[in-house]
Amino acid sequence: MYTIGIDYGTLSGRALLVDVHSGAEVATAVYEYPHGVIEEALPATGRKLPPEWALQHPQDYLDVLYHTVPAVMKESGVNPAEVVGIGIDFTASTPMPTKADGTPLCFLEQFRGEPHAYVKLWKHHASQPQADKINATARARGETWLKRYGGKYSSEWFFSKLLQILEEAPSVYREIDTFVEAADWVIWQLTGNLTRNTCTAGYKMLVQDGDYPSPEFFAALNPEFGNVIGTKVGREFAPLGANAGGLTSAMAEKLGLPADIAVAVANVDAHVTVPAVRATEPGIMVMIMGTSTCHMICDEKLADVPGMCGVVDGGIVPKLYGFEAGQSAVGDIFAWFVDNAVPPEYHEAASSAGLGLHAYLEREASTQKPGEHGLLALDWWNGNRSTLVDTELSGLLIGMTLATRAPDIYRALIEATAFGTREIIETFEASGVQVKTLIAAGGLPEKNALLRQIYADVTGRSMRLAGSSQSPALGSAIHAAVAAGVYPDIQAASDALGRLKDDVVNPIPENQAVYDALYQDYKLLYDTFGRGANDVMKRLRKIRDAGRGEALS
Amino acid sequence: MYTIGIDYGTLSGRALLVDVHSGAEVATAVYEYPHGVIEEALPATGRKLPPEWALQHPQDYLDVLYHTVPAVMKESGVNPAEVVGIGIDFTASTPMPTKADGTPLCFLEQFRGEPHAYVKLWKHHASQPQADKINATARARGETWLKRYGGKYSSEWFFSKLLQILEEAPSVYREIDTFVEAADWVIWQLTGNLTRNTCTAGYKMLVQDGDYPSPEFFAALNPEFGNVIGTKVGREFAPLGANAGGLTSAMAEKLGLPADIAVAVANVDAHVTVPAVRATEPGIMVMIMGTSTCHMICDEKLADVPGMCGVVDGGIVPKLYGFEAGQSAVGDIFAWFVDNAVPPEYHEAASSAGLGLHAYLEREASTQKPGEHGLLALDWWNGNRSTLVDTELSGLLIGMTLATRAPDIYRALIEATAFGTREIIETFEASGVQVKTLIAAGGLPEKNALLRQIYADVTGRSMRLAGSSQSPALGSAIHAAVAAGVYPDIQAASDALGRLKDDVVNPIPENQAVYDALYQDYKLLYDTFGRGANDVMKRLRKIRDAGRGEALS
Repeated sequence: MYTIGIDYGTLSGRALLVDVHSGAEVATAVYEYPHGVIEEALPATGRKLPPEWALQHPQDYLDVLYHTVPAVMKESGVNPAEVVGIGIDFTASTPMPTKADGTPLCFLEQFRGEPHAYVKLWKHHASQPQADKINATARARGETWLKRYGGKYSSEWFFSKLLQILEEAPSVYREIDTFVEAADWVIWQLTGNLTRNTCTAGYKMLVQDGDYPSPEFFAALNPEFGNVIGTKVGREFAPLGANAGGLTSAMAEKLGLPADIAVAVANVDAHVTVPAVRATEPGIMVMIMGTSTCHMICDEKLADVPGMCGVVDGGIVPKLYGFEAGQSAVGDIFAWFVDNAVPPEYHEAASSAGLGLHAYLEREASTQKPGEHGLLALDWWNGNRSTLVDTELSGLLIGMTLATRAPDIYRALIEATAFGTREIIETFEASGVQVKTLIAAGGLPEKNALLRQIYADVTGRSMRLAGSSQSPALGSAIHAAVAAGVYPDIQAASDALGRLKDDVVNPIPENQAVYDALYQDYKLLYDTFGRGANDVMKRLRKIRDAGRGEALS
Repeated sequence: MYTIGIDYGTLSGRALLVDVHSGAEVATAVYEYPHGVIEEALPATGRKLPPEWALQHPQDYLDVLYHTVPAVMKESGVNPAEVVGIGIDFTASTPMPTKADGTPLCFLEQFRGEPHAYVKLWKHHASQPQADKINATARARGETWLKRYGGKYSSEWFFSKLLQILEEAPSVYREIDTFVEAADWVIWQLTGNLTRNTCTAGYKMLVQDGDYPSPEFFAALNPEFGNVIGTKVGREFAPLGANAGGLTSAMAEKLGLPADIAVAVANVDAHVTVPAVRATEPGIMVMIMGTSTCHMICDEKLADVPGMCGVVDGGIVPKLYGFEAGQSAVGDIFAWFVDNAVPPEYHEAASSAGLGLHAYLEREASTQKPGEHGLLALDWWNGNRSTLVDTELSGLLIGMTLATRAPDIYRALIEATAFGTREIIETFEASGVQVKTLIAAGGLPEKNALLRQIYADVTGRSMRLAGSSQSPALGSAIHAAVAAGVYPDIQAASDALGRLKDDVVNPIPENQAVYDALYQDYKLLYDTFGRGANDVMKRLRKIRDAGRGEALS
């Protein structure tokens, strides 16, 4: 018996066929979105997009289904009758406007040339003015839900994007029957049923304790927004692991699967990784590490954690509070360094050694003892997501001498991201959420042994690695197995099918001692430059933007 | 009528033949020291040297005379009878132990294998424990001369080095009849007369108001050091521009010059640059810019300038107080960056453009407006010489984003060194020494137009460039012209023979406004990390040294 998990990323979708008894990953297939990320101009008309826009085309999401599902069936040779469920996960918040029947506005001829008719990808940041308004209004009204989001609602999220449509294109706004997360839209296409999964509903759509904020709050944002709930956004909430309805006959035919098999309620890529690594109990922090890092942890109690991204009841698995935090640049910083600050001799040496530059620098940096390079960095090259929630912060490197070399800085940057994770962990613990062990998923920790050891040493916690290299798709297949009734709940399915590598990376006490000392200085710099004692980073940004002729923020 | 100026640098000596009426630079010749800088092992015996040692061989200094003087005479075709004087300048403090007749100890067979018998080059830093002792003792005794050195005597200077010999090799110390600056030793060889020029005497040998510190002070350092003045070091003070005595017949024959021509009292390379650029009046700051920068300025009044390197009555020109300050790394930081932090694409682009990497980065950085890169740096890659006088400080770079590129950092580093100069200027002015205009000498400002403009913009002062590319040698030739009686004093000779380029670099008001704002933040970081509010740089250094197995400082 099998399920299919489909992971919708930023540039492509990936399907994974999983044996729901053995957990074996039987076949996989990837399909790149033909439209990719639409940032410069609308393909349909060539209309230019302003800065900070990032759109997608929903046809790409359907094409992922049409290509990858038949591909994994064909590759595996599995009898379609043995497939009992499908699950999907998605980037978030990635919402889109549709008509009442689920037709995306951008599919309609009259809206092909209208940017606001398309999917707004998670990294569409042009809704910042609307996010600012949401935050100011919530603070002014003393909205209690604000602290569930670490005190700040993001420009990346659902209502910032919908409010942007209302304010910038009210005529488009009025044509919307339903504004829906792409995740839930795909499930709608598969089942004919509109559901809103509790994960995006909670983390991105402000649903707390079962409902949205009040009409008065929305009206305070804009009089026409007062009735947004009910006219554009519904209460079709559905818990994670539930069956959203059977696969429609039409879709079953297109995909070559049996009709009526279970389709799990959608989920977010980071969150669905948690069951894929058997971390559905309190005390286990999952770090999904790539260009950035997402931190996920479950707990039985609600807690106000300063600067977290969000806490949602049942947001990761039912019956537990799911907490999310993050670091806005991790792999991105290392990539920046390797692309922009490593001299030719290291490129040549790496090439001679038959290694990539990352691997070569890692090897060179591995010969050092902690602290030996004399450097310390603040990992804010792309701002700070948690615990400061401040996009205007920037990077800092201190301690350079004429003897400083590239591997020294490379190591210091890895350490800085580990200190950033420790800061998040300590903030969780100070708020009552215990973090006992770490699990890392993603390509970054898989490839970099030095990074794994540094994270264990800096945090003082043992760390294990995800067992699958496609954890989100595996997590979606786990959700599908629950929706199909193969397992009674996500915890049970996670225990059976979730996978970890055997190796445990334990902290080395003598390294810990050095990193404990360095972390005190990291914290001091963190507080100095992050909490208002010295706002030089913001002043530099203002001068920079003025120099570039951009408006002062 | 002609004089010859000879500039003794760290790696070579250069002679310049100058027409003392027209100021024309008629011929020049360079001779590289065969022994170079002795840092690893003694060439004579292969004996290994400890870290931080830097020695030289005095035979090299004589060989400079024997090679370069005949070379310039030959190249110019000038009749030797028309040469009326010689002057020299030297690195400092670069002292050596000799016998009573001036024979260097290292020339004697029994001392060939003794490191302490050789010249200790200015950058010999192994005397740090002795410098520490000198400073602690002076502070404890309330020695009033200490503030003439910005509150700190350096490991690079004369008595640190002599005390090191006494403490580490007392038997060698006891064989010394005279401990003498190499500058003065060369004059001794040329004239047969031992003189101690007021420049090194004042800046390096603690001579203030006509005499050394008291015997009690020296005895407090070490009982055997109590009589160092009189037994090892004399009072043969001679003012700058004076004739140290005629050229001996033996030396005249070797050099192919007339006997008895004037030999000017020696001087230091940085200081002798001042008359070469017509800066012998108050208000003009001369910056000798290379790997590091030396700042020179004259004033009529004595002033206590915090963190200056020194103030000496007649130390630059007679009858004025000569002030010196410095930045320990300037060109060195840019070289560090270019060697260690620029990716291959820029190397390739520079090569395609037919430019050196410095020139290419300068060109790229020149297209930016001030502040446009969003970065700020503290220029302490090699510690801070003035105004903090702290070798344990290190570099800082702040403001990096994922969009930061190599030319951004290159420009920020240039700006950081300019801010460092502004800090020195403001400290001088706050102490009553006016700095009205700037003159820059050295290869760095000559080659880099962006640097010149940044320094003018940051300091808010107009800047001119030295007219000669060999200013120290020209300065020495000017001293020789005074010693020969062609001019009545250094000022007159400087007015006649000193040279400046015509171009004046003036501050651009709109750039100044941005840099004024950035400088406020530079100062804030300067004070935070340099004055004890956050000693993270020192803690990082301690952890680094512990990690390397070195003793904690």
